[in-house]
Amino acid sequence: MAMMKAVRKMKRERGAELVQVPVPTIKPHEVLVKVRATSICGTDVSIYDWNAWAENRIRNVPQTMGHEFAGDVVETGSAVRRIKVGDYISAETHIPCFNCPPCLNRQFHICSNLVILGVDGDGCFAEYAAIPEDVCWVNEKSIPPEFACVQEPLGNATYTVCVEPVVGKSVIIFGDGPTGLFATGVARVAGASLVATIGRHNFRLDIAKKMGADLALNEKELGLDGVEKAIRDALSAKFYDGKYGADVVLDMVGTEEGIALGLKLVRKGGRFSAFGVAKKLQIPFDYNNGIVFKGVDIRGINGRIMYDTWYTVKNLLASGRLNIEPVVTHKLPLDEFEKGFALMMDRPKVSGKVVFML
Amino acid sequence: MAMMKAVRKMKRERGAELVQVPVPTIKPHEVLVKVRATSICGTDVSIYDWNAWAENRIRNVPQTMGHEFAGDVVETGSAVRRIKVGDYISAETHIPCFNCPPCLNRQFHICSNLVILGVDGDGCFAEYAAIPEDVCWVNEKSIPPEFACVQEPLGNATYTVCVEPVVGKSVIIFGDGPTGLFATGVARVAGASLVATIGRHNFRLDIAKKMGADLALNEKELGLDGVEKAIRDALSAKFYDGKYGADVVLDMVGTEEGIALGLKLVRKGGRFSAFGVAKKLQIPFDYNNGIVFKGVDIRGINGRIMYDTWYTVKNLLASGRLNIEPVVTHKLPLDEFEKGFALMMDRPKVSGKVVFML
Amino acid sequence: MAMMKAVRKMKRERGAELVQVPVPTIKPHEVLVKVRATSICGTDVSIYDWNAWAENRIRNVPQTMGHEFAGDVVETGSAVRRIKVGDYISAETHIPCFNCPPCLNRQFHICSNLVILGVDGDGCFAEYAAIPEDVCWVNEKSIPPEFACVQEPLGNATYTVCVEPVVGKSVIIFGDGPTGLFATGVARVAGASLVATIGRHNFRLDIAKKMGADLALNEKELGLDGVEKAIRDALSAKFYDGKYGADVVLDMVGTEEGIALGLKLVRKGGRFSAFGVAKKLQIPFDYNNGIVFKGVDIRGINGRIMYDTWYTVKNLLASGRLNIEPVVTHKLPLDEFEKGFALMMDRPKVSGKVVFML
Amino acid sequence: MAMMKAVRKMKRERGAELVQVPVPTIKPHEVLVKVRATSICGTDVSIYDWNAWAENRIRNVPQTMGHEFAGDVVETGSAVRRIKVGDYISAETHIPCFNCPPCLNRQFHICSNLVILGVDGDGCFAEYAAIPEDVCWVNEKSIPPEFACVQEPLGNATYTVCVEPVVGKSVIIFGDGPTGLFATGVARVAGASLVATIGRHNFRLDIAKKMGADLALNEKELGLDGVEKAIRDALSAKFYDGKYGADVVLDMVGTEEGIALGLKLVRKGGRFSAFGVAKKLQIPFDYNNGIVFKGVDIRGINGRIMYDTWYTVKNLLASGRLNIEPVVTHKLPLDEFEKGFALMMDRPKVSGKVVFML
Repeated sequence: MAMMKAVRKMKRERGAELVQVPVPTIKPHEVLVKVRATSICGTDVSIYDWNAWAENRIRNVPQTMGHEFAGDVVETGSAVRRIKVGDYISAETHIPCFNCPPCLNRQFHICSNLVILGVDGDGCFAEYAAIPEDVCWVNEKSIPPEFACVQEPLGNATYTVCVEPVVGKSVIIFGDGPTGLFATGVARVAGASLVATIGRHNFRLDIAKKMGADLALNEKELGLDGVEKAIRDALSAKFYDGKYGADVVLDMVGTEEGIALGLKLVRKGGRFSAFGVAKKLQIPFDYNNGIVFKGVDIRGINGRIMYDTWYTVKNLLASGRLNIEPVVTHKLPLDEFEKGFALMMDRPKVSGKVVFML
Repeated sequence: MAMMKAVRKMKRERGAELVQVPVPTIKPHEVLVKVRATSICGTDVSIYDWNAWAENRIRNVPQTMGHEFAGDVVETGSAVRRIKVGDYISAETHIPCFNCPPCLNRQFHICSNLVILGVDGDGCFAEYAAIPEDVCWVNEKSIPPEFACVQEPLGNATYTVCVEPVVGKSVIIFGDGPTGLFATGVARVAGASLVATIGRHNFRLDIAKKMGADLALNEKELGLDGVEKAIRDALSAKFYDGKYGADVVLDMVGTEEGIALGLKLVRKGGRFSAFGVAKKLQIPFDYNNGIVFKGVDIRGINGRIMYDTWYTVKNLLASGRLNIEPVVTHKLPLDEFEKGFALMMDRPKVSGKVVFML
Repeated sequence: MAMMKAVRKMKRERGAELVQVPVPTIKPHEVLVKVRATSICGTDVSIYDWNAWAENRIRNVPQTMGHEFAGDVVETGSAVRRIKVGDYISAETHIPCFNCPPCLNRQFHICSNLVILGVDGDGCFAEYAAIPEDVCWVNEKSIPPEFACVQEPLGNATYTVCVEPVVGKSVIIFGDGPTGLFATGVARVAGASLVATIGRHNFRLDIAKKMGADLALNEKELGLDGVEKAIRDALSAKFYDGKYGADVVLDMVGTEEGIALGLKLVRKGGRFSAFGVAKKLQIPFDYNNGIVFKGVDIRGINGRIMYDTWYTVKNLLASGRLNIEPVVTHKLPLDEFEKGFALMMDRPKVSGKVVFML
Repeated sequence: MAMMKAVRKMKRERGAELVQVPVPTIKPHEVLVKVRATSICGTDVSIYDWNAWAENRIRNVPQTMGHEFAGDVVETGSAVRRIKVGDYISAETHIPCFNCPPCLNRQFHICSNLVILGVDGDGCFAEYAAIPEDVCWVNEKSIPPEFACVQEPLGNATYTVCVEPVVGKSVIIFGDGPTGLFATGVARVAGASLVATIGRHNFRLDIAKKMGADLALNEKELGLDGVEKAIRDALSAKFYDGKYGADVVLDMVGTEEGIALGLKLVRKGGRFSAFGVAKKLQIPFDYNNGIVFKGVDIRGINGRIMYDTWYTVKNLLASGRLNIEPVVTHKLPLDEFEKGFALMMDRPKVSGKVVFML
């Protein structure tokens, strides 16, 4: 039996281990992928760290971690049709049922019976991974693995930004995590006339600038009032009186104060994309003044559209329009996974996206 | 100086008076309308009752009340171009500035500098009213005044329902006030496959049935759990497993428990229209499970689109497709305005829409 | 080897035969359906009649005809996951590749590598049919087979009508074939304020009236000028000056003169749905006045959205909102297939939709 | 009476004259503008050249030419409210009636009773111009007059490109006239992953490259087959098999062969924007294969959305995202208007946009 290296969650407690396990045996609808690159998501950090969410959500331990990857198909199951051996693929991590109301309305990414790669089963922090054909995405060969593997979070950002057009619009982004940084780049490439990224870590705000942010605002340094003032001033300087607010607000972080400021800053008739995951169960909303009287459109964003968003992401990367190099700050061998997780968890933040190269 | 009857707010306290005042002198951009019918809105009740909102919002007293009407143009100001003497009109009550970001993006109805008829100046509970040409809507002659005068709230309902298509969709309506009842009729006419209206007054729920509700659910009798069960059962009976929820939820009442149940009932990828005005400043939202993970689209609705919505409303009324007679429960002479307000405020509810005929 | 009855195209010439053939052996991704009802499409008439299109398009003869059906799944292939034995299904006839740009943008119904049921392989004019799981649609049990089998053309009509909202809009339908008649009913159910259906057969125009047409206009009797006048008069009578034209025009027949009149009748900024298949290769368009200066939106319509449209159709039928009984004019046993085709080809038209019951 | 210089059409024949005329007297709804820059449109060339269109369309001669400008408001009519003396403005040239079905549906730019500045009355090739307040657009002060004056054609291009999103899409532009060149820049700024501009003049195709075209293809040199091959090859090289065609095609020129190639090149489910004005009354369309079976969306484009498009244009210019300097090839004093028209009419083309500075 062929063996491989894998980073696995071995116990329902903090940590993970690099172990030798058998190469997965694929089922009829699956393909076997030789992983070339795989990256750490916030979800992986939660599982590593074993926080309350992980304790509640993860059913199977031991389990191989990871869901973001790029690699080569080396074997296909008997029922596989679309994907071929030799295809260079990544994968959508939301595995849909194709049979519930959202799926029957082509909203596969928010299937009512969603199964998630690397959460509900073995993932891809390993030399090989078994992936359902349904979620395979064939990469453009020219996109290097360290970029191809982050298309899943880049797709989150692209969907959040582009769910409605941003060309010629002012876009305010709450959050300097990797999806916030990707969103910064996508908003810029998609023609936003003002891009302001709000975060708490200068290391990441510097990346935001490299990704095209006109304003990279440190909320810890400026305070919420200072952030608001900076944005209104920037609007007033070039566009229209900042008292009217911004066209588009993206929440990529899920904090109560960010959501409140976002609903305050979005202009009447503007759009608010809700992508961040809140730490609190209930978030207070100024229903009348923040939504109803404003005529705001709040778009809940989860996952990425299968595969409209992937198509957009691929074209932006293949064309060179979008350069995500500033966000991919670290490339490590899989053996250094502990270092990778440490880079993700250090405070203040000293990483963007951390990729393991195999 | 020609005099006329008018129902006016005379003091900053509960009540109103029917008094003789001069017929308004119109400004260059205004027309003078001889009012044929005018109806009571919830806003008028607030002003009559002089609640906290009214105390805070109304600046001018004495002031003629009312903003919903139908009547004939008898005089036009020197700068008026589109409207002619003899036109049979109603009016959009949201007077836009035409110069702010929403206005410059054709979102006039949520202008950042909105002035509201009958709130920020004299209204139409009178024999004559001065109306800015900008907000005049020419009625189809065949629509009787008692229906033409309620097009403003009917437009609210139409916009709330039709901001995205409902044909073949399940539509859940929270609220049995006049806009909730209108929304019931519009949802039915627009092809919704299931229409469930939730209220607290059997008098009004009976009207909901006449307007086409498949389910008219009394929340006080059934409890929230009973309401939820009835809706899920109705979905399961004819459409798909009710556990998935409904395609569309409309909040026409603004209660915390209705909003919470609505966000629970809307299916993943569904639409939630937020039209109701909440009594509380802050409403708790289940941000993660109610918006983000659900991929829900929350549409803040205020006013009506100028004039897309009016065009739709006119065509639905003129064609006879939509019959709003069940909602217009009372027609009174203006002299009986006290009775009209009493009808609106009685509990349990014994009225739909109350119209004054002149 | 189990045998079954099937209506098959036996030779590359006019006609078809009812023969005994083996029950199909299903492939891993297919299901075997016991057909309960199957209906004749215009495509089937072309194949039966063996016109130039059929000679050019059909590769395999002998081949079982038919692609519209409802039936019960009696066996599932080894790779089938979503569909179960006992499911009552119909099928989308456009079999997508899931791998081309339209498919990757969720436009499966216009896949670049489309394979069509009953055209590119054996169809369903038989006791049993082998159907790829990818295109199976599970029917609501309460919908009778004679209605469930016509959901494919009903879906064409629904997509053509509802590609943009029609509530409160005037809708002009060119064509009194089954899809034109279905479109009439759907437009009415979806809230169109004026529905005018234009055809050449009084038998079918009578059905149009039963489906809710306000105007059912015989082009042969009225002439094109008479048709135009009737529509403009109907608009002027209740809505607005007919000189401006109608909000929406649907071409369900593909004649040069109908397309020209349609582009003339659609109002500036209106919508023109192009569903009809033209007999001529090239149709002259008044590009400047019919499209550019008018700011018209021409929507090419082919097939039905998988499965948004099917979801809408199911909900309209299951709810009873849409009654298609007037269109389903004939129910025959499969043995009388010759009579069925005769009914479809007779002039003047004496049928709507012809269904074979098994 | 104050006098001014104006370039006027004096006779119904080729040519124009620079003459002294009285400064316009404004009507109540108009403002008087001191023109700082004004540019030549193809319409002006037609009027100058006095082609068949001009002979048929222009009613008033003598008449001051021109409709694209930027200038300062020096006087406002008695009925003017929104615009102030000192405002730095340009103008929408489509003057709507605000009272027809398109206007009542906020499609002012394609009003059924459109009046066009400089065509139906005196224009702006003069030191002063009288402009209806309804069409005044207040410019951002930082935008120089030579750029602000071309916002009207730039708006055409922006509307044509952005009527649906282009981010991550391949965009093929037929036409290397100024709107084609502007469209090239807008498509690039809006995130198109491939921009190919097709023209007949190397001078202009060089500008297309400066505006961001990935491919600038000379149809005269390559032939239509060569153009098609170059585009399919470019798609195949980086994106997907070019046989599937491009996501978006823009017709900015109106030639029969360009339209035919465009409908051939657009992918199934793609979008075709029809902006070009055809020289022929009737253009043959491959209705079945070009529209219906392709499921293509053809968007007729005329004018610019009031004022959504202007808002976008302003923000793109004010932010510096879009640099239109390469297109504005010539700045001349008004006295040299003959030279300006010569530059526009010379073959091969030796100009982009020609601006008169006052």
